[in-house]
Amino acid sequence: MKISCSKGNLLKSVNIVMKAVPSKTTMPILECILIDASAGDIKFTSNDMELGIETKVEGTIIEKGIIALDAKIFSEIVRRLPENEVVITTDEKLNTLITCEKAKFNIPGKSGEDFSYLPFIERDECITLSQFTLKEIIRQTIFSIAANENNKLMTGELIQIQEDTLRIVSLDGHRISIRKVQLKEAAKDRKVVVPGKTLNEISKILSGEAEDMVHIFFTDSHIVFEFDDTVVVSRLIEGEYFKIDQMLSSDYETKVKINKREFLNCIDRATLLVKESDKKPIIIQISDGSMELQIDSQIGSMDEEIDIEKEGKDILIGFNPKFLIDALKVIDDEEVSIYLMNPKAPCFIKDEEEQYIYLILPVNFNAVNR
Amino acid sequence: MKISCSKGNLLKSVNIVMKAVPSKTTMPILECILIDASAGDIKFTSNDMELGIETKVEGTIIEKGIIALDAKIFSEIVRRLPENEVVITTDEKLNTLITCEKAKFNIPGKSGEDFSYLPFIERDECITLSQFTLKEIIRQTIFSIAANENNKLMTGELIQIQEDTLRIVSLDGHRISIRKVQLKEAAKDRKVVVPGKTLNEISKILSGEAEDMVHIFFTDSHIVFEFDDTVVVSRLIEGEYFKIDQMLSSDYETKVKINKREFLNCIDRATLLVKESDKKPIIIQISDGSMELQIDSQIGSMDEEIDIEKEGKDILIGFNPKFLIDALKVIDDEEVSIYLMNPKAPCFIKDEEEQYIYLILPVNFNAVNR
Repeated sequence: MKISCSKGNLLKSVNIVMKAVPSKTTMPILECILIDASAGDIKFTSNDMELGIETKVEGTIIEKGIIALDAKIFSEIVRRLPENEVVITTDEKLNTLITCEKAKFNIPGKSGEDFSYLPFIERDECITLSQFTLKEIIRQTIFSIAANENNKLMTGELIQIQEDTLRIVSLDGHRISIRKVQLKEAAKDRKVVVPGKTLNEISKILSGEAEDMVHIFFTDSHIVFEFDDTVVVSRLIEGEYFKIDQMLSSDYETKVKINKREFLNCIDRATLLVKESDKKPIIIQISDGSMELQIDSQIGSMDEEIDIEKEGKDILIGFNPKFLIDALKVIDDEEVSIYLMNPKAPCFIKDEEEQYIYLILPVNFNAVNR
Repeated sequence: MKISCSKGNLLKSVNIVMKAVPSKTTMPILECILIDASAGDIKFTSNDMELGIETKVEGTIIEKGIIALDAKIFSEIVRRLPENEVVITTDEKLNTLITCEKAKFNIPGKSGEDFSYLPFIERDECITLSQFTLKEIIRQTIFSIAANENNKLMTGELIQIQEDTLRIVSLDGHRISIRKVQLKEAAKDRKVVVPGKTLNEISKILSGEAEDMVHIFFTDSHIVFEFDDTVVVSRLIEGEYFKIDQMLSSDYETKVKINKREFLNCIDRATLLVKESDKKPIIIQISDGSMELQIDSQIGSMDEEIDIEKEGKDILIGFNPKFLIDALKVIDDEEVSIYLMNPKAPCFIKDEEEQYIYLILPVNFNAVNR
């Protein structure tokens, strides 16, 4: 094989496929990037058996062929080459010579035959979103998937299509995050659970531009994202996702309108008095026109008041401050509305159109704190 | 005690004194910042018994007093307060109330009496430098102090004054870094060894501006840096520093002029093939008009040529690439001159006026590598 590409193009493509290279594996071939120049295009592929990425590389094929190169070493070499044309040549023993200007690297390659190619997916049903929107809705929900694998379904996000509405949901047993997006065209109803890792990695590759599109295809076991010169294929998580609709109530006893930035800064200040392991709640007292936040710990105590608009009853309620911070951080609105029922019922932070809904369970603080 | 300062002024001063707060100590009082508002000024002090920092804080004393506050908590609180006026009030039980806008923090304080004040230093001999120069010469030498404490003197830097010349030297047994600075006025001859930690911390506080000055005072056991509203006092390292002058020879058999950036990038590329623990040398072949760099490891091999100007003999010599990188990184010249004697003698990278001299010992690669 002999190919020639600019360093810039190589680096761009390497950075994309690196996202599906596992850091540790029992199959060394998976730690490789496959360079496939056997047909008309140069393609890089990586595959950790759950997530696979294929991307086209701009360049010239001088001699057709296939080689698998250690991903870490290859990416490091590409990163440090001068900004110029790079030629990659392999010999029959799979030794690979990478040259750029006067620099010559020699590294061993592996046979492409051992590599796990991406599964073939029939592309029939498809929805289309802007890369900006997909990146945003991932960012705005991914934080509330479960960190540990005790319940596999909680480590993924529900992607649900109902006519022309796409809904993305994540939950971890203490909170639920929901974002809704209007699609341009109605599609077949679908409910799939996508691994959180897939969504995390894909959001790093997405350009985030509103003009760039991404096409999403589904099968019973896989989801495929197609955008720019890249295809990302991921396994789905099997099983029935949690029935969340029955948890979403629109009843409330107290409604609060608050400046998001003030609220967030105040909780952020309060948290410096608690270690993550402490599980100290922040106590919120809502009265007419003002919200008082209060936290008490071994380190010290804090007390702060924020002006609010209130409808309904006064309420005293406790929360894990982290859950409030996580939700507030990803909301773009300047002012948010909070709906509360009683100190034991979940609180909702949502907008009028319910384009976003954050449900957070309160913490029982009577026993702990007062 | 009751004082009032802007959040910005508080934060600036806290960040300065934090540099002398030890992260771990058996004396909890040392983990505090002392706020001294007992006289006309508000002063913050920190002291880890080797390094002490005192800085004046702009603000108003409403009621005189002294308090010691846990440095980590106090700095975190200040960092997250709104940008406004902050009032710090202590009561007779040393409880401290920090208020800013509607935020109120309550933390316990400690008595200032237990705090170790900075030693009193008579300020007679003094040299003056710009903060820019001091910061630069520290950056350009600090990397070659020894990392471990086996030889205490190697963990510090020699500061030597001879008439109107200041020389700063660091060495770790494999290399020596020297910078020379012309002083505006001659001063008394001095030779002191300053702990590397002191120089590291002080360079973080220095503004780096050429117009801002720093005054340096010496005693037999201490060095004092005075600049802006800050005084830094450090113990010296006791003992006789290494006699380096006999190692500095101006003889050479080969002299090379090379583009610094090209040389640095090339070595940087080569190092990706070696793990730090490998101790693989980079082999340099110098001939007329060109330098060939070559490295070989289990991962692969690299080979690159760079155009040079050469005087004298051809030479084949090996180096620890890290030592070359460290020195080249801090040299500002576009082109550097390298002086070599033979494959077992130290090489010198230096400028004509010897404002900087980097001595690097070569590595014997015959046994290891060829």
